[in-house]
Amino acid sequence: MSIFGVEMAIPLAFDGRMNSETLTNLLKRFRTALVKTVLVFAGGVGMEADEGMWLFNAPPRALVRERYGMDITEPWLDHIQKSSVRFNSGGSGSFVSEDGLVMSNHHVGADALEKFGDADHDYLKDGFYAGTRVDEKKCHDLELNVLMTIEDVTERVNAAVKSDLKPDAAFAARRAVMAEIEKESMDKTGLRSDVVPLFQGGKYHLYRFKKYTDVRLVFAPEQQIAFFGGDPDNFEYPRFDLDICFFRAYEDGKPAKIPHHLKWNTAGLTEGELIFVSGHPGRTSRLLTVTELEYLRDVQYPRALQRLNRLEVLLTSYSARSRENARRAKDTLFGVQNSRKARDGGLAGLMDPTLFARKAADEGRLMSAVAQRPALESSAKAWETIGRAQQVMREHALRYNMLEAGLGFHSTLFTIARTVLRGGEERPKPNGERLREFRESNLASLELQLFSTEPLYEDLEQLKLSDSLTFLAEQLGSEDPLVRQVLGNKSPRGRAGDLVTGTQLRDVEMRQRLYEGGKTATAASKDAMLEMARLIDGEARRVRDIIEQQDEVKKQAHGLIAKARFAVEGAGGYPDATFTLRLAFGAVKGYTENGRHVPHQTTLAGLYERASSQEFVPPFDLPKRWIERKDRLNLDVPFNFISTADIIGGNSGSPVVNRRGELVGIIFDGNLQSLVLDFEYTEEMARALSVHSGAIVESLRKVYDANDLVKELMRGAHSF
Amino acid sequence: MSIFGVEMAIPLAFDGRMNSETLTNLLKRFRTALVKTVLVFAGGVGMEADEGMWLFNAPPRALVRERYGMDITEPWLDHIQKSSVRFNSGGSGSFVSEDGLVMSNHHVGADALEKFGDADHDYLKDGFYAGTRVDEKKCHDLELNVLMTIEDVTERVNAAVKSDLKPDAAFAARRAVMAEIEKESMDKTGLRSDVVPLFQGGKYHLYRFKKYTDVRLVFAPEQQIAFFGGDPDNFEYPRFDLDICFFRAYEDGKPAKIPHHLKWNTAGLTEGELIFVSGHPGRTSRLLTVTELEYLRDVQYPRALQRLNRLEVLLTSYSARSRENARRAKDTLFGVQNSRKARDGGLAGLMDPTLFARKAADEGRLMSAVAQRPALESSAKAWETIGRAQQVMREHALRYNMLEAGLGFHSTLFTIARTVLRGGEERPKPNGERLREFRESNLASLELQLFSTEPLYEDLEQLKLSDSLTFLAEQLGSEDPLVRQVLGNKSPRGRAGDLVTGTQLRDVEMRQRLYEGGKTATAASKDAMLEMARLIDGEARRVRDIIEQQDEVKKQAHGLIAKARFAVEGAGGYPDATFTLRLAFGAVKGYTENGRHVPHQTTLAGLYERASSQEFVPPFDLPKRWIERKDRLNLDVPFNFISTADIIGGNSGSPVVNRRGELVGIIFDGNLQSLVLDFEYTEEMARALSVHSGAIVESLRKVYDANDLVKELMRGAHSF
Repeated sequence: MSIFGVEMAIPLAFDGRMNSETLTNLLKRFRTALVKTVLVFAGGVGMEADEGMWLFNAPPRALVRERYGMDITEPWLDHIQKSSVRFNSGGSGSFVSEDGLVMSNHHVGADALEKFGDADHDYLKDGFYAGTRVDEKKCHDLELNVLMTIEDVTERVNAAVKSDLKPDAAFAARRAVMAEIEKESMDKTGLRSDVVPLFQGGKYHLYRFKKYTDVRLVFAPEQQIAFFGGDPDNFEYPRFDLDICFFRAYEDGKPAKIPHHLKWNTAGLTEGELIFVSGHPGRTSRLLTVTELEYLRDVQYPRALQRLNRLEVLLTSYSARSRENARRAKDTLFGVQNSRKARDGGLAGLMDPTLFARKAADEGRLMSAVAQRPALESSAKAWETIGRAQQVMREHALRYNMLEAGLGFHSTLFTIARTVLRGGEERPKPNGERLREFRESNLASLELQLFSTEPLYEDLEQLKLSDSLTFLAEQLGSEDPLVRQVLGNKSPRGRAGDLVTGTQLRDVEMRQRLYEGGKTATAASKDAMLEMARLIDGEARRVRDIIEQQDEVKKQAHGLIAKARFAVEGAGGYPDATFTLRLAFGAVKGYTENGRHVPHQTTLAGLYERASSQEFVPPFDLPKRWIERKDRLNLDVPFNFISTADIIGGNSGSPVVNRRGELVGIIFDGNLQSLVLDFEYTEEMARALSVHSGAIVESLRKVYDANDLVKELMRGAHSF
Repeated sequence: MSIFGVEMAIPLAFDGRMNSETLTNLLKRFRTALVKTVLVFAGGVGMEADEGMWLFNAPPRALVRERYGMDITEPWLDHIQKSSVRFNSGGSGSFVSEDGLVMSNHHVGADALEKFGDADHDYLKDGFYAGTRVDEKKCHDLELNVLMTIEDVTERVNAAVKSDLKPDAAFAARRAVMAEIEKESMDKTGLRSDVVPLFQGGKYHLYRFKKYTDVRLVFAPEQQIAFFGGDPDNFEYPRFDLDICFFRAYEDGKPAKIPHHLKWNTAGLTEGELIFVSGHPGRTSRLLTVTELEYLRDVQYPRALQRLNRLEVLLTSYSARSRENARRAKDTLFGVQNSRKARDGGLAGLMDPTLFARKAADEGRLMSAVAQRPALESSAKAWETIGRAQQVMREHALRYNMLEAGLGFHSTLFTIARTVLRGGEERPKPNGERLREFRESNLASLELQLFSTEPLYEDLEQLKLSDSLTFLAEQLGSEDPLVRQVLGNKSPRGRAGDLVTGTQLRDVEMRQRLYEGGKTATAASKDAMLEMARLIDGEARRVRDIIEQQDEVKKQAHGLIAKARFAVEGAGGYPDATFTLRLAFGAVKGYTENGRHVPHQTTLAGLYERASSQEFVPPFDLPKRWIERKDRLNLDVPFNFISTADIIGGNSGSPVVNRRGELVGIIFDGNLQSLVLDFEYTEEMARALSVHSGAIVESLRKVYDANDLVKELMRGAHSF
């Protein structure tokens, strides 16, 4: 359950804006891009050739024309945009048939797959194929979004936030105007409407999405082949992963009719060929100031890693106890390991002094330019303002993370309790004054999560809660008055047991009754978890206020920096990633590592060689049918390939298309060299990893006998 | 390599007195005992019946007579004492034949086993049996100690430390007198001589040990059976582990002639039967003050767990990459996991408010009693003094841990470099003024470690060093001037690579040359690791000084508290564990958990049932020969049994003897209920786990065809 699954609009210069489950979900699709040269805006100094996560309303037309001689046309762009899909569980995908078929990564679908399972069914491990429509399995709480339009509302937003307002009033004003714009838009269009701050607050765009909430599972391979090589091979290349799965969007109980979907092309790719990636990069930090980067290096990344390490140990040891435990924890554990490896790489990059030297030099250049232009005087103090705001955030970040972002209460039942409680308080308020996740335009998505029928496991809830309450006491101190109240003279383990057995919120109807009963109902309830949510709510809101106000201060200052950048370097750049749709481009391209050439693609033959060289010891074992059916396969078919496209976590599942807009692959990872950072782009060795469209069809046909699925994909395919 | 392997004399009220490798080694043998009732001294309030880790010169005669009607005689005690063996790798054992045969746990021998291995031999995993004496394999750096005599030197030590001395002078005086006593004793007796502070500094005893440094491996089973159930079953009961291995002590190239060794008894045990455990509990914290316990709860345990979690993740992911990696890291990883589980349990106990309530009540009672007796006036301020010293330690502990205790430099090569460097500086000083590990009486043991021929793996060294340098920068801050110097404008990963490839200290002859060449040789050397050791040495010594002085302050204060306790509660108690020989007693006894009776022993049949119920999935798989030879075994033979004896980590491998002094088992673990704490004893559910002597002989004969070994054990066995 990830109530704030797409609540990614606000840059996370502090830890864990989202609740901890969402953090895990997002982090799990998190990847980063290698750093060698300094990034500034397109057209500015040092822009790498294939760099950029471009807005669909400001695509890299000139660059692509110049580099690859291709003109990006409006119809081409519109087609790609509307064929692209966002997963609220934290990833990307695309429509691949007119009957609502959606392709994404196995690891993006994992959250849904895991929720289908029970002690007798492990779909995540064993895979799934619905031979007929009737067998397609409805997901518990998956929401898909398709971007329909973008509108620039910067002026209206900024006009509402007078420049002389204090941070609290400015924050309130900005929240109000954003909620108002969203509500208006939703009422008018019926579409999900989100105002997205870009350039850390330099611009505000209104994104309108068509939503699908009846989403059904069609096909997933075994995790062994989707994630062949496991954690050791994660972020490595060469790779051999069939990291795919297929869902189908339904409307009114029938497969949705999809006007824009991608045509399949299995012809293969030649080295140097131009490709595009259309997906939802989650978060980058390329435009942060040096003080903000220092915060990431000194506080946020180490703290995140501390938590990820303890979670990995906790879940690994829980999983080792029995097969059923392993099944229950598998998706979460994968996410934790994936984030840990990505963060490790990120921190290694942040600890490279040459990165800071480049960033400082870039910042210095811009500050000098500002000093020389009287028209930019208002921007001159922005860096200092951000540094001060960051300092205030630093002082409150720990408490914020523990109490508001949920790191001290790592439990789905707690998240439910808090949402029920706050629903009672927030929903009666005027739309513009509510906590942002309760704004009108977001309520339906929030309720989909809240009333999810996903199975909840008492033992796992208790384990996670006990561990996080221990973490809470460690971090805030056992003698902290609120911690003492939270623990109520019990040990964390004892308290967690009481809370999990003392709540009825596993019952979806009970959730509905309390949520719909509003404040009266929650006030009357003696539910243990609800009382816990109430106990900490005042303090949690207090620290959230502080963080949000400082975030507002930073937004304004970043707006001024963006203004300066636009003036000095031109306005043709792209903003940091915000989990909204972006277009990246690049070439299919090998690279050289330690003097050795790493080719641009692997083949099915390579898979068998890798497994055999590792003696088929897990995680290098192969599913039974991949062994049995080896002889049927054309082993020369390309399996995974790499490209220079600029991607990051959240891009997982993004379609890779050629210049004709045909689907030639699907993004699923980056290589180790791309792991270093989300702070700078380079194309020297950093590569995006994709599954090749040819391998998908070859294995669907010959390993899985999924002929109907292939037929549906091939309808109108350009070639095969 | 654990240079300070037995450097356990000083209570670890601050983190990591030892270097980080030793910490791991010791922690890995660490277990703790459950807490239900408050402990005070024997004869005092609330003493549990079978409680105590008794000194051999103050055995629990009255208690055992009263509870079990047995008289502990001098010859009996002397025989048990001299049959007991201490392992410098961090555990216990016993002589079991007149030809120097020593039995300990597989996990105590694991350090030695791992060092024998290479890419083609994995003795830790596959086991080993030397059919003849010629095949016995000499260990790289194992030292065994046998306690010969104990002498009370409290008066002489305290006489040298005048009560009006400042902490630095007091520390120097105490260090000098201890070194002097030790040197005198060694010169006179030729025995290893250590002055051991007991009761946190309330008493000082001189321990004299006979040393064996030519120790050879005779037999080890496969790790799968020694540690059946792996991490998930660790600290669990019922259990089914053959956690044993056999070494042989040699003198002058021949098997040592051992006058005192234990006779074997396989007759089995009845419930309620009296047993004794003679071994080397590593560390307990039962006599710490409330402020010291708070420090453990708030700082030391969380910090240790943070490090253990990150190490576990690091080594697990390294191990998953290849089988050879797994072999290289196996023993360390086991130790880390074991410590993590023990610490988790310990922290859970520390976070139980009722523990603190009991501790505070006990402390309050003693303070009141002191206030009422004018003769104890000098003790009245001791608690406050300790609180203040603890506060100073708290301020410097992080820096101390990182720089002096080696957490920032987790590398055997670094430890070697530091020892070489400091050897050059310390050895020319008068004995009493040296850093304690360089005192005359310890030099031979230190050099055994320093010149160990154990294999060192460049990749693993680099991985650990890179991770710990990252930890250093995280903890002390990237901008810390010393951290900047350490990293030298490189990332931690880059710097670690330079250091590991830039040192020649893997070469044992090079170490010897530099060590023997003294300060002149080290000053002339450009070895990268040596230069790193030099770079931080000033600051490392500075924080060590601070910590040692505060430790001296605490020692004096604890001396006053001990004096008060002796006066108020009687002097018949036992001190906290100090990795020196202790006698515990208790009964073979089941317990009741959640209303269910847990019987006092398991059988070989239970092993096969457990494996089969877990479908033989690792870590519940069995070695091939255990499957093949199942039919030969008498499945009714008892396998593991439990008792109420008071043990802790370091006791691993301790012989369990009956009232006739015959060996009936060997300690290898405690149950989960014993995991909670090393802060209090209870016999309600906490149990010590042992391998039954009968199962050892049964499996040696029928699974391993180790008939010569059995014959040697049985020579003079009382019954079979």
